[in-house]
Amino acid sequence: MQRLETFENKYPQRDYTITIVNDEYTSVCPMTGLPDFGIITINYVPDQLCLELKALKYYFLEFRNQGIFYETVVNKILDDLVAACQPRSMEVVGEFTVRGGLRSVVKTSYAKIENR
Amino acid sequence: MQRLETFENKYPQRDYTITIVNDEYTSVCPMTGLPDFGIITINYVPDQLCLELKALKYYFLEFRNQGIFYETVVNKILDDLVAACQPRSMEVVGEFTVRGGLRSVVKTSYAKIENR
Amino acid sequence: MQRLETFENKYPQRDYTITIVNDEYTSVCPMTGLPDFGIITINYVPDQLCLELKALKYYFLEFRNQGIFYETVVNKILDDLVAACQPRSMEVVGEFTVRGGLRSVVKTSYAKIENR
Amino acid sequence: MQRLETFENKYPQRDYTITIVNDEYTSVCPMTGLPDFGIITINYVPDQLCLELKALKYYFLEFRNQGIFYETVVNKILDDLVAACQPRSMEVVGEFTVRGGLRSVVKTSYAKIENR
Amino acid sequence: MQRLETFENKYPQRDYTITIVNDEYTSVCPMTGLPDFGIITINYVPDQLCLELKALKYYFLEFRNQGIFYETVVNKILDDLVAACQPRSMEVVGEFTVRGGLRSVVKTSYAKIENR
Amino acid sequence: MQRLETFENKYPQRDYTITIVNDEYTSVCPMTGLPDFGIITINYVPDQLCLELKALKYYFLEFRNQGIFYETVVNKILDDLVAACQPRSMEVVGEFTVRGGLRSVVKTSYAKIENR
Amino acid sequence: MQRLETFENKYPQRDYTITIVNDEYTSVCPMTGLPDFGIITINYVPDQLCLELKALKYYFLEFRNQGIFYETVVNKILDDLVAACQPRSMEVVGEFTVRGGLRSVVKTSYAKIENR
Amino acid sequence: MQRLETFENKYPQRDYTITIVNDEYTSVCPMTGLPDFGIITINYVPDQLCLELKALKYYFLEFRNQGIFYETVVNKILDDLVAACQPRSMEVVGEFTVRGGLRSVVKTSYAKIENR
Amino acid sequence: MQRLETFENKYPQRDYTITIVNDEYTSVCPMTGLPDFGIITINYVPDQLCLELKALKYYFLEFRNQGIFYETVVNKILDDLVAACQPRSMEVVGEFTVRGGLRSVVKTSYAKIENR
Amino acid sequence: MQRLETFENKYPQRDYTITIVNDEYTSVCPMTGLPDFGIITINYVPDQLCLELKALKYYFLEFRNQGIFYETVVNKILDDLVAACQPRSMEVVGEFTVRGGLRSVVKTSYAKIENR
Repeated sequence: MQRLETFENKYPQRDYTITIVNDEYTSVCPMTGLPDFGIITINYVPDQLCLELKALKYYFLEFRNQGIFYETVVNKILDDLVAACQPRSMEVVGEFTVRGGLRSVVKTSYAKIENR
Repeated sequence: MQRLETFENKYPQRDYTITIVNDEYTSVCPMTGLPDFGIITINYVPDQLCLELKALKYYFLEFRNQGIFYETVVNKILDDLVAACQPRSMEVVGEFTVRGGLRSVVKTSYAKIENR
Repeated sequence: MQRLETFENKYPQRDYTITIVNDEYTSVCPMTGLPDFGIITINYVPDQLCLELKALKYYFLEFRNQGIFYETVVNKILDDLVAACQPRSMEVVGEFTVRGGLRSVVKTSYAKIENR
Repeated sequence: MQRLETFENKYPQRDYTITIVNDEYTSVCPMTGLPDFGIITINYVPDQLCLELKALKYYFLEFRNQGIFYETVVNKILDDLVAACQPRSMEVVGEFTVRGGLRSVVKTSYAKIENR
Repeated sequence: MQRLETFENKYPQRDYTITIVNDEYTSVCPMTGLPDFGIITINYVPDQLCLELKALKYYFLEFRNQGIFYETVVNKILDDLVAACQPRSMEVVGEFTVRGGLRSVVKTSYAKIENR
Repeated sequence: MQRLETFENKYPQRDYTITIVNDEYTSVCPMTGLPDFGIITINYVPDQLCLELKALKYYFLEFRNQGIFYETVVNKILDDLVAACQPRSMEVVGEFTVRGGLRSVVKTSYAKIENR
Repeated sequence: MQRLETFENKYPQRDYTITIVNDEYTSVCPMTGLPDFGIITINYVPDQLCLELKALKYYFLEFRNQGIFYETVVNKILDDLVAACQPRSMEVVGEFTVRGGLRSVVKTSYAKIENR
Repeated sequence: MQRLETFENKYPQRDYTITIVNDEYTSVCPMTGLPDFGIITINYVPDQLCLELKALKYYFLEFRNQGIFYETVVNKILDDLVAACQPRSMEVVGEFTVRGGLRSVVKTSYAKIENR
Repeated sequence: MQRLETFENKYPQRDYTITIVNDEYTSVCPMTGLPDFGIITINYVPDQLCLELKALKYYFLEFRNQGIFYETVVNKILDDLVAACQPRSMEVVGEFTVRGGLRSVVKTSYAKIENR
Repeated sequence: MQRLETFENKYPQRDYTITIVNDEYTSVCPMTGLPDFGIITINYVPDQLCLELKALKYYFLEFRNQGIFYETVVNKILDDLVAACQPRSMEVVGEFTVRGGLRSVVKTSYAKIENR
């Protein structure tokens, strides 16, 4: 899979938040083989590393032809991104389009436990 | 009545939320026999089980020709869904269209009491 | 089927338009048996008769459990309403909610041919 | 009934339009005795006279406790206002709130026949 | 004055909220005799009783020709509704239209003091 | 009064339109002495001259403490601007805020008669 | 300056909030002499007195030709209104239109210290 | 490629329009290999045949991994759909998301030439 | 200056329209040296050539540090793009942000004269 | 670099907030050399000094041709503005436009530690 890349956070002395929104998320429903569409929003407080946007864009493209459930997508993105940049905290939200008359949103989060 | 179905939550170690919105809810007013319309929103934190969307869609269809009050619909959906998937917490909101110049919203919730 | 009712147009000397919008249209898909939802808009120029709203409301309720295609609904409403009130002209528009990722709109119209 | 008042049009050499919108129209349904609410919009091209706004406001207040049908309101306002200010042309639109799940709009107009 | 009616709350074991919105509130300004318009929103947590909507609609109609100040309307509705259904808590909000270039909102609330 | 200024149109061989919108128009009602507020929109097709924006801004400021009727404002702006830049055509629209529950819009226009 | 007026609060036993919004605020920039425009919002919890709206409207008109900074306007309105009606708490917000590509908002508040 | 399907138009005696909107169009840019996203809108007046929605949905899915330019997509859809249902007229519009700071819309149409 | 590029129109037998919107236009005011911002919209009917988007993007970047009037920008873009792709017709619209309380829009167009 | 200027806070006895929004921020991406666009929002509680808006506007212009990352812009603005006006607290938010299908927001803040 596409490697996520990072760069050094120049302001690690501060807790500040970075939000990245992908309005063009798409993958494939593992049950029907039909495409799913959604908006993925990532909020995180960086520690020593920030996520590099170009590699992140290619990371999202890998889902395009993958069969994956909503709950799995959102939690997997959280796991992958936390592993890549080891943030102080991170939240991932997936808002998916209507299927069978129902709209779904999945929201998950991570917080580093620290001795500060 | 239509059986609700569930599947295993693969991320039970995390408290994360799933939101499901049904913009096409309809039932029948038990007083007048006329149809009621509304939007039902479910927010829950799964424990070991997640709600399966296709069965949920058929569950909602069962209300179509049923005579039922707003307060009952929303609390009944909460009871049925809590029974089906035993979530850590759940909230159900029903927003109903104008009747006699008045709009109604009913909001109810459940939280599991745990020893954690 | 529910009889449409009319009342006398008190201003037949003028061409004026009446618009009636039903935001709560629902019927059943004849292929899948699942409910369809939509907004039906009627624009007409009355001649000697105007459509009575209460009977029209009950007329719409008749579609609730009927299996009928979008194209048929809209053209049938046009035929029934033209027959009931014999307007100078009428347009019927049905805007239906998303099914299989596609939204549909059907628009049809009638004009009386007159010697004026 | 409240007298409509007018003042002299200082620019009769030009065809220009004046629009007046009343967002707070209310009257009583002659069938049920319940209040109706709506927005009345008047567009006109003045000839020698313009409608005075304060008297127009009091004119609208007269409908408050009157039992009157939608089609009649809109056509009556047209007749009264045309009689008062004898415009080159006038259009009156009434947009009424939801009753029995149906929304109604009535639109009527007048044009002076001239030798120009 | 119109009697408010109630029905038994079938879910008194839960704290849940009911919201009722009246977009068609109107009364008369006690200073000028001119009509006032507004939106009244009621949020409450029922105890043993729920407010019946049809009687509530007629209750609101009583204000139509009454001269009453904004602050009084909103607090009076709170008093009347609390007296009628004895809720665990209630909030009443009145949002009134522009008068003299100023818009007003009044918000008041009640909470039962309990030994629980 | 503030002099309107113009500069040479560099593209007189083409009919093209320039739109200028002033969201901050204010003057004084000649009846009550209270301020009026509105949005003035100017659309014109220049001939040999274009309106200079800075002088136009000061021109609008002159109305601030002037008592003037809606119909006069809009027609006077048309007359002044046509005199200043002699356009091929011009339209002036004034949209004024709510007074006594009524909103007003006045729209007027000019077209040069040419031998082309 | 225009005297603010008050009337007796008939519900002093309750903490409730009154919001008043002036969409038509205007004054003059003390640096450039050009007009400033904005929306002033007042939220307060009355104690024994409520602000009378008509006097408040005239109070706002006094700023029309006054040269005053944004920060001063908002804090001065707070001081004047607190002095006039001695509320339990009050918040004043001024949202001003774009100047030099920048939009400004100033928000200030007051709370009475009480022995209750 | 996926076969488009049709069904008989039951109202060929009337010129009426059918609109179908696909909010989930995606294909691949032939230059960069990156995905493109857009909304495809089809408006047509059927002659003897109507487009079947389920086959149309599968037809759209075929573009998902195809490299194709905006201008080609929209004209190709027109050609394919005209060939399939031989409508009296058809319009296809593609609205594509931002690429390199630019948004694109392509709109094309067809009209049958008839002896009527 | 950046060369505009084109590619062959594969559907020259049809009159169809292409719209390109640049939401990130910026240049410099030749009077004050301060930046101007706007949205440029291009609508054209191609003849034998279509505009290539990447070169167009670089063409727009050339305006960034150039001092140029609104009327000139819009007409110059029309001239340059018509020269580059010789379309059947083209329209260019520039919508600029507020300066001195005034918003401006400039709209110009071209049509090829043909023997058809 | 452009010097930020300040003026004396006349209400230092109160904690109140000032918000300044720049909808026209632009700089250059240090990787690609292409322009970036965004909205910068500053919220602060002044201590003895307030930020002067004209100098702030010129301060923002300095970024126009500078190559700088999103995370750096937002934190640098915070540092510079805190140094200039030594506020009780400050928050800076940058919302940037879509690049490669991704939208970014960066939010950072400062709070003075005081003995009060």
